Formats: sequence, structure tokens, C-alpha cells
Amino acid sequence: MTSDTAAIAAATRPAQDLLARRHATLGSHSPLFYETPLELVSGNGVWLTDAQGRTYLDGYNNVPHVGHANPVVADAVNAQLRTINLHTRYLNSRVVEYAEALLATFGDGLQRLFLTNSGSEANELALRVARQHSGNTGVLVSDFSYHGNTTSLAELTTGLQVREPLGAHVRPVRIPDALAADAGERLLEQALAEVDAAIASLQEAGHGVSAFLFDPLFSTEGLLQPPAGYVDGVAARVRAAGGLVIADEVQSGFGRVGSSMWGHQMFGIEPDLVTLGKPMGNGYPVGGVVTTADLLDEFGRNNMYFNTFAGTPVSSAAGLAVLQVMEEEGLMAQAAGVGAHIADRLRPLAAKSTHVGAVRGRGLFFGLDIVEADGTPAPALAKALIEDMKTRGVLISRVGRHDNVLKMRPPMVFTREHADQLLEQLGLALEALEK
Amino acid sequence: MTSDTAAIAAATRPAQDLLARRHATLGSHSPLFYETPLELVSGNGVWLTDAQGRTYLDGYNNVPHVGHANPVVADAVNAQLRTINLHTRYLNSRVVEYAEALLATFGDGLQRLFLTNSGSEANELALRVARQHSGNTGVLVSDFSYHGNTTSLAELTTGLQVREPLGAHVRPVRIPDALAADAGERLLEQALAEVDAAIASLQEAGHGVSAFLFDPLFSTEGLLQPPAGYVDGVAARVRAAGGLVIADEVQSGFGRVGSSMWGHQMFGIEPDLVTLGKPMGNGYPVGGVVTTADLLDEFGRNNMYFNTFAGTPVSSAAGLAVLQVMEEEGLMAQAAGVGAHIADRLRPLAAKSTHVGAVRGRGLFFGLDIVEADGTPAPALAKALIEDMKTRGVLISRVGRHDNVLKMRPPMVFTREHADQLLEQLGLALEALEK
Repeated sequence: MTSDTAAIAAATRPAQDLLARRHATLGSHSPLFYETPLELVSGNGVWLTDAQGRTYLDGYNNVPHVGHANPVVADAVNAQLRTINLHTRYLNSRVVEYAEALLATFGDGLQRLFLTNSGSEANELALRVARQHSGNTGVLVSDFSYHGNTTSLAELTTGLQVREPLGAHVRPVRIPDALAADAGERLLEQALAEVDAAIASLQEAGHGVSAFLFDPLFSTEGLLQPPAGYVDGVAARVRAAGGLVIADEVQSGFGRVGSSMWGHQMFGIEPDLVTLGKPMGNGYPVGGVVTTADLLDEFGRNNMYFNTFAGTPVSSAAGLAVLQVMEEEGLMAQAAGVGAHIADRLRPLAAKSTHVGAVRGRGLFFGLDIVEADGTPAPALAKALIEDMKTRGVLISRVGRHDNVLKMRPPMVFTREHADQLLEQLGLALEALEK
Repeated sequence: MTSDTAAIAAATRPAQDLLARRHATLGSHSPLFYETPLELVSGNGVWLTDAQGRTYLDGYNNVPHVGHANPVVADAVNAQLRTINLHTRYLNSRVVEYAEALLATFGDGLQRLFLTNSGSEANELALRVARQHSGNTGVLVSDFSYHGNTTSLAELTTGLQVREPLGAHVRPVRIPDALAADAGERLLEQALAEVDAAIASLQEAGHGVSAFLFDPLFSTEGLLQPPAGYVDGVAARVRAAGGLVIADEVQSGFGRVGSSMWGHQMFGIEPDLVTLGKPMGNGYPVGGVVTTADLLDEFGRNNMYFNTFAGTPVSSAAGLAVLQVMEEEGLMAQAAGVGAHIADRLRPLAAKSTHVGAVRGRGLFFGLDIVEADGTPAPALAKALIEDMKTRGVLISRVGRHDNVLKMRPPMVFTREHADQLLEQLGLALEALEK
């Protein structure tokens, strides 16, 4: 063994031990990124450091919304943990302050809040509300989507492996993509006709329509961009059939899209229910459902809903700290500006490369279709690019039906300078593909 | 207005404002304890202080397992929040350390862990595992129980108001209570015959049996005490029918019963799945499912299960800190000793009162049936006692089918001295009932 390989062996042994110990406790199926999993030991803002001391620019993680190891969030959680942390069957002012601050960012119709511990719990609850309100069970979802890990959500999962078959009450619809090479002139018309057919099918089968559940960024789908008139068109049809509109803003919320605080506001609609998760507490587990006074009261009258960990002073303090940092640092406006800068720089980069198709995204959630020279999806190339970007010190991932859309969704404290570093490395990685 | 009433008005006004603001954001159905809700602003160990500066002995809350505002937990969470907090798709040593420490407290067969954010998520997941493994859907639950707030769990909720009708695949069974005044000699035999009938009914209807889901303390039911041979008898029958045994240890786990770390160990059985929640992170949202290597691998092969907030370094640090404090302070042994002391003192107190029936519980979870002079349940008296105990500076609650069983389940740092204070006030409150 040369001294070089000995050094490598010494450096990788702990990670291999850790992996073996993980397999012996969490099992071998618990998902991990990368060919060689990355052990990350510290973070700061948009930067992460691995066990070998290597630093990475985080172009992927949206949960640490206001930055890794944010001290404002840590201070708020720490102070509250040392004071009191109890459930909402006692009064606490912190949860009310948080609810008021959060609801102030929503439209006039959406002024009530259920708190939960995750996006899965939020989508579960929103579906319960919709089923009970409508008296129907039918659900419309996109045909490549994921909304959480419970049974009810597994039954409508179309974008990830689950054992449960698609529910008989579920109708997946194809989201029209104005950026697709084959998008025809009748894209909107055809897509809405498909929705009409799905609704008719649910009604004929006796399920009726309880809800349309969608991610305003259609991110799992590969950051699809529906034509104007689609989302509001579906919403109108679902409501006409007696169903409710649920915007799953776990990915698209909290200013991520740059132009507005909530993804649904891009379409000029007000959903009946908005579900929240990932970035809400910067990693502290917080989720929620924002809805109307009528829907919340109706559900509350008929169900004793209680959630032990949700709405505690500590989870509220974490949520408040995130809103406070966003406001003080102007992160939504920054996402708009940096996002526009990125889009401007991605287009020429895409034009130069034979392996880049559409440039996608909004604000600080952007993507690139990675394709073969003939335009067909190239998942293996996308995978190779992600691994190459890791060796270049930048973390990104991929999504979409063909797993070929690069997914870049950094913490919101990502600046123009960070963007330029990411884009420089991405440019080099794409150039390398041309050779 | 006298100066006294003016002072009272001034002191209660903020609480009324806070309640109005809460109603305007969380709605009026979100449950609150007490006729006049209590605003608690700080805690320390077993003590809580309200907004008016009044101190209460906490005889009720089990989430702050190692004590309110525990500094070891706060330090661990704070240090980790300032270092890194990322999901399990990257390696982190903290989650492996936590899994190893937690699994060391389980039997040889139960050596794999799924982490979740709540008991609801844990029970959801355990049911998914059981349904997929058995190929069946039928579930046996007690006829007065609660296991969480999702749709699947609402469909088998029998002990709390939900709008969803009981699922066609659910068979509620009455838990036999050896402490009931009318418990006959054939109690065990009759109860097991009811289980046999429920299993036969599920099989005839084509649902088959996927699981028996139970709380080893039968706490929602009113701390029922099944005769020896019941729990293991049900487990054997369910397994013979191809189903799995799920112990919901959200209430009974983490040394609460005193004699063992896990409630199921009281019955000498090893369940197929054990679900965890409330005390796991001392208020930081952590839940989990402990199961066998085979069941975890089978589920992992067939489902991409991922849970964003679960198993992060911070949630693992919180869980580790709880185990560490339990170990260092010998809290399980303390629960056994203090629990035995309480039971010894409750019996004469019950004998003296015309309004106390059975003395119930195990370790630091104990109860008293509050009854009329003729032995029938007395929920109004139980409610009055709880309100009276509040004015005496002690927090307790009630459970059970008739809402007449006093529920006393303090943080595990509750000592003999705290117990004596609670018992003294309880004795006075019961004496007052006799007048």
C-alpha cells in the first residue's frame, strides 16, 4: 500500500464503519445520496463541511431556509427550551404570535391555522378536512408527485416507489409543460379536457371529488411549467364538482419563488387549504395547514384534533425566528434577484451545451433538463453531473419523471456570489460532458 | 369596582386577550384544559409557573420526561443546532449513536429503527408495515382507544370524537379489567372468546388480520388492568391469524411503568413493532418504530420511505440527552420506587373516601376511579376534583370511557417528596367531597 492509498483508507474507514453501523440499526434501504455517501459534520450559511474537512457549497437543501446553523433560530429555540415547552392545551403566547405573523402573509380568506409536525401530517390533515367537507373521497393529483409518507398519501403517490396500489378514488393527471419540446398549441385545452375526464370518471365511479392536491412548482414532476390558465382552470373545475383546492407549499412556500411568499400566488388563485412543512422551522420539525375560518370550524366541531408536539412554544419560536430572519435580511426579494440572475446565466450556458434542454424554475428553485444530443432524457448523464459537481465542491440533485432534471434549491441566504460559484462549476462540468 | 376585583380584572385581561387572539388564529375548537384556561409561562423540573406568577406541581405532563426546561436536553439541542442539522440522506454519526443507544434497551428480536416526528407518524408507519407484511387489512383495537390523528388512525379511533366512521376492517374489543367491581371468574376466558370472534369476523369479511394495536397501559381506556394471560393470549391469536402485534408505547415507554423500560415487557411478550412518541425528545418532536430486521428490510425493499425531519442530528441529540439523563439519574428505578410509594398511600386514601373506587396504574402513571356512593362512575365529581386540585396548585387530568378516572402521570423526575405533596392535596380535595 502506498502512503497515498493508506491515507485514503484511513480517511474512509470511519465513514465505512459508520455506514455499517447505520445499516445495523436503520437498515440498508434508508436512502443516501451519492455513490460514496457524504458524512457532513458542520454547516454555516450555505456552506457544509464533511468529516474529512472538505467544504461544499450547498445548492440543494431547502430545509435550512435561513442558512445552516442559523444563530437567530438557535438562540430562539435555546432560550425557549430553557423557559417552557408545553402543548397547546395550556395557553401560550408564542403560538399565537407565530400564528398571527404567519397568517399575515396570506390572503384575506386564509386566516386560520392548524399546526403539525411535518408536511406529511399537514397533507393528511388537509385531505381529512377536504373529504369531510365535500362528503366525497376522490382526489386529483399529478401523475408524478409525492405528498408524504402516510397510508392515505401513499395511495396517491405517483412519483416514488410505494407498495400500496394507487387508490380507486385517485385520478392522476398529466401536468402540461409549456417548456417541453413537443408542447403543442392545444396544450392547455388538452390538459383541461383530461381534467374534465378525470372528474367525470370520479363522479361516475361514485367517489365524487374531494380535492385537487398540487405543488405549485410541480417540482417532483421535474419543475414543469403549466401554461397560463391551467392551475386556475383546474381549481375552477374541482370547485364546480364540490371539491377543494389544496396547495402543497412544502417546497414552494416561504418566499422560495421570489415573486411572492406563496407559490399559489403565482397563479392568482386562493386555495382552500395550503399545506406547509420543510423550511418552516429551519430544520426544527414544524408543519401546518392554513385554511378558511369556515373549514377550520367545521372540522373542529366534528373532530377532537390535537397534536402533542405542534404549536409548542419552542416550535413556534423556531417558526417566528425563520420569519424574522427572512424579513430582516429581505430573503424573498433576494431570491427573486438571485433567481433572475441565475436564469440569465443559465440560458447561454444551456445554449452552449448539447446536453442541456429546457431551463426551468422560479426564484431560488431552478433546474436544467439533461438530455442526449437528440433531446431525449439522459438520467445517467444527470447522475454523472451530480457526482462531478460533488467533486467540484457543490451539492445539487435531480428530479423528474426521467430523473434527468438537475435540481438546485439552495438555502435562501444564497447570494449572487454563491450563484456565480455554482454556475462556474456547473459550466465546467457541462463542458467536460462535451469532450 | 373594589380594588380586589380591579386587580383580578387586570390580571385576567391579558389571558382573555390571548384567548381571543388564539380563537382568531387557531379557532375555538383547539382543546384547552380547565374552565379558565391556564397560561403557563415557565417550567423547571416538576414545577410550572403561570402568567400571574402562581406555581403548580405538575402531576400530569409526560412529554417533559426528564423535567421541564431540562438543561442537559437544552444544551444538547443548542450545541447541535449551532453545528449542523440535516436529513438522513447524508451520513451523520449522531443518528447512529442514538439508534444504538435506543435499541440496546430492546429485546434481541427488536433491533431495527425507523425514526419519525410523532407518535401519529409512528403508528401510521407500523400499520403500513403490518398491512404490507400480512397482505391483510383487518385491525384489532380496544373499544376505547386513540392512536393518532391521521385518516388511517381516525378510522380505528374509538375513544375520542372523529367524523370518520369506524373502518369496515376494524374490530374493537373490550379490554377486560381485573379491577372492575363486576369482574367475574370467567373474565379472561370471555375476553379471549371475544377476540376469537373478532378475528373470525375479520376473516369471514375478507379483511383478514393485519395487526393488534394496543397501549400496554390501556391508558385512554382508563388504565384498565387485564388479567394475566390476556395480552399474550391476544398476541398468540393474532399471530396465528397471520397478523402482527404492535405495542403503542407512546404513553407506556421510556421507563414510565418503573419495572421495565417498555410496557410490553410487563407481559413477557416481544411485539413485532413498537411505536414511540411523546417523551422521546422531552418535547422536541421525535417518534419512532422499533421492529425486526426482517420487517424493516421487507418494507424498505418495497417502499422508498423517507422522513425529512426524522433522524436529524438535532432530533437524535435530543433523544440521546433524554436517555442519558434517565440513566444518570436512575429515573426508571425512581419511577418504580415512587410509584410503589404512591400506590401504598393511595389505597388507604381510597378506603376512606366514598367517592373512590379502584386504585390503578403502574410506576409513575396512576389513577383513581371517581364514583358515586353506589359505585357508578362520577365524571362531574372527577372534573370538580381536577379544578379543585388546580386551585390547590397541582395539575392532574382524567381519562376513561366515563371520563371519571383521575390521570396522574408526572415528569419522571417526580420524587417521593413531590408525590407526598400531590397526595396531601388530593387527600384534602377528596375530604372536601365528603362534606
